[in-house]
Amino acid sequence: MSVIYHRVALIGLGLIAGSMGLRMKRDGLAGEIVGTARSAETRATALDLGLCDRVTETAAQAVRDADLVVLCVPVGAMAEVAADIGPHLKPGATVSDVGSVKRAVIEAVAPHLPPGVHFVPAHPLAGTEHSGPTSGFAELFDNRWCLLTPVNEASDATDRLARLWRAMGSNVDTMEPDHHDRVLAVTSHAPHLIAYTMVGVADDLRRVTDSEVIKYSAAGFRDFTRIAASDPVMWRDVFLNNKDATLEILGRFTEELFALQRAIRKGDGDHLHDYFTRTRAIRRGIIEAGQDTDKANFGRGDAP
Amino acid sequence: MSVIYHRVALIGLGLIAGSMGLRMKRDGLAGEIVGTARSAETRATALDLGLCDRVTETAAQAVRDADLVVLCVPVGAMAEVAADIGPHLKPGATVSDVGSVKRAVIEAVAPHLPPGVHFVPAHPLAGTEHSGPTSGFAELFDNRWCLLTPVNEASDATDRLARLWRAMGSNVDTMEPDHHDRVLAVTSHAPHLIAYTMVGVADDLRRVTDSEVIKYSAAGFRDFTRIAASDPVMWRDVFLNNKDATLEILGRFTEELFALQRAIRKGDGDHLHDYFTRTRAIRRGIIEAGQDTDKANFGRGDAP
Repeated sequence: MSVIYHRVALIGLGLIAGSMGLRMKRDGLAGEIVGTARSAETRATALDLGLCDRVTETAAQAVRDADLVVLCVPVGAMAEVAADIGPHLKPGATVSDVGSVKRAVIEAVAPHLPPGVHFVPAHPLAGTEHSGPTSGFAELFDNRWCLLTPVNEASDATDRLARLWRAMGSNVDTMEPDHHDRVLAVTSHAPHLIAYTMVGVADDLRRVTDSEVIKYSAAGFRDFTRIAASDPVMWRDVFLNNKDATLEILGRFTEELFALQRAIRKGDGDHLHDYFTRTRAIRRGIIEAGQDTDKANFGRGDAP
Repeated sequence: MSVIYHRVALIGLGLIAGSMGLRMKRDGLAGEIVGTARSAETRATALDLGLCDRVTETAAQAVRDADLVVLCVPVGAMAEVAADIGPHLKPGATVSDVGSVKRAVIEAVAPHLPPGVHFVPAHPLAGTEHSGPTSGFAELFDNRWCLLTPVNEASDATDRLARLWRAMGSNVDTMEPDHHDRVLAVTSHAPHLIAYTMVGVADDLRRVTDSEVIKYSAAGFRDFTRIAASDPVMWRDVFLNNKDATLEILGRFTEELFALQRAIRKGDGDHLHDYFTRTRAIRRGIIEAGQDTDKANFGRGDAP
């Protein structure tokens, strides 16, 4: 592969930035990668891991002469970072981000960017339940989707960023920001809140002890705990910044859950059976689309 | 290992019976394994796979002279099977089952068993989203828990069955049947209903298409679809037969979900952050207890 950006600045050095850095270095996609994070420890770790070439203490320093600046901080921190870097951006530079919410990020970031700087918001649909720079790996984006939500028409800046994401292993789609937020409310935000809730309830019960919940988790619950182990700050910000779409989906979810609870109470086995049969088809679709493994139990150690 | 039961009859030949058969054969735990299933095709498959030595057309034939009879049918079918086999059981035989609900199974089965037959209900907390005889494998029970809920005091029959489950790789605990049903409502039944509901909602939305849900599922949703791909008949019967405990947990779940929705609506970030931090600890407990992998994304192909 060849260099796509001469200098890339990564603002925030967690799982996503770490994986981007490792992949860009592995495949020579950037001339130089400059990183910054608020914590000196994180910066030192990032240098040790070789996920950037150089670190700076401030975001303003990091973006100097960068052709691409990627904001990899929690959604709630985007406005402040954008205000910090705005005056220091190189004319013609592209600013992007990796936030899980797009409308709120656009509103937080766009006002701080000077004319002549291109803003191409992005969201790689990739991650794990782990966080921090040590959790990054170069293959994170392979065969995952990255959604770009450009605010203006397609431009050279969008095409170039799409090229970078493809070179990092992603499939790339563009999408209107509000539609993005609705889609993600379904595929990600509501499921996360539901998983957090279920795990919290289990933790809270007095009649079933935590040690019982832990010992006997293999019956289904443990899948929820993986999701509910995700980064608390990131997810707090997602919910605060995709309020309407998330609450709408949760409203639909509650309605449906009540209907199923009623079927259980009334002993309506046909309703339950039909519902449970329909949901199998979606799983098949996901496996056929190459977005999950067909191996039993996700191919965990306990299945062949 | 040495033979624990001379003749074992498996009634129903799905994932659990299949895995038991393969394991007992592999390790020589049974002198002979006789299997039966309603469908001729399933019986033929079971013979082909070698998960039993012999099949019979009826359950009554299968249990003849068996020292251990294991009912591996959906919970809703237990009463009928018990009525069928009752008159044909060998005096001194042990009858067990693998149902996910224990109180209802005891009520369905016990009245049909003649005096002198021992009834030791059991529930191996193991499985995958796949079903049918071809989905079985000998290692399914390794390091998983099997809960025995004997209705009378500890007896030789209970000890012998515990020995079999340990020989098949399980850890064994005994538990009071009603407590079992409450614990499983938390660790399994409520999570399954919630996963089914969320997947159903996603399927139902008009504004987000199924193909979008499928393509972009890696952001969390795909974990739910695995659970929601489980056997519909089995799960229908679980909910119909563990009504009270499941509805109680779902009530607690809804209460908590409403509190979190309210925090989102009000913008109460501290409440969200505290909640999401607390749930991480449970995940750590499960990993330390050896009940799940610490590998990112369950060690799916996309993580190192």
